[in-house]
Amino acid sequence: MRPVKFAECSIDDCGIVRFLSLLDGPWATLIVRELLTGPRRFGELIKALDGISAHTLTNRLRGFETHGIVTRTVYSEIPPRVVYELTDIGQQLRPVLAAMNDWALTVPVPAS
Amino acid sequence: MRPVKFAECSIDDCGIVRFLSLLDGPWATLIVRELLTGPRRFGELIKALDGISAHTLTNRLRGFETHGIVTRTVYSEIPPRVVYELTDIGQQLRPVLAAMNDWALTVPVPAS
Repeated sequence: MRPVKFAECSIDDCGIVRFLSLLDGPWATLIVRELLTGPRRFGELIKALDGISAHTLTNRLRGFETHGIVTRTVYSEIPPRVVYELTDIGQQLRPVLAAMNDWALTVPVPAS
Repeated sequence: MRPVKFAECSIDDCGIVRFLSLLDGPWATLIVRELLTGPRRFGELIKALDGISAHTLTNRLRGFETHGIVTRTVYSEIPPRVVYELTDIGQQLRPVLAAMNDWALTVPVPAS
């Protein structure tokens, strides 16, 4: 079995801590999930992510831009069109989200 | 490329949404990270997870028990010893956390 780096690292240089900081809160992951299906305009993201506030969406997208996970492209139209798209680094979240998805679907729903 | 189930599912039956509910907040993931190195007593977890409150730790561990991710074993000693351990389902989070870790370590730290 390959070495489990994350189990040995200190809390500061741990990739998992970094992951939780880059994908902070459930909305961040759901924005990425949405963008994995293709580029989206701000309004399309708001509509797809039922319940997210414009403030939270702006905040998460800015964080993603800062870290090179998402690009923001402004098309000079009237009104201007702003499109968000995953970078190559962002696209590399696909197998991570697939692993989350596959694991969660194996967990039995407890009897209520 | 294999079909990306999570990108097609509705928000309700999505494994990613279920994942985010099962591993709710950063502490949940960090508790799992700790338990991936072996069984732990409550006090050992508190000590390892600097800043977590007893309330949050109890709450997350109970949630994990309910969903069959962690077992809680009480040894009748004086004082009683209570040990938390990942189940097989919990152990299957290892590749998920490894994927998170590996991805995050590829993201460049922005120049400040």
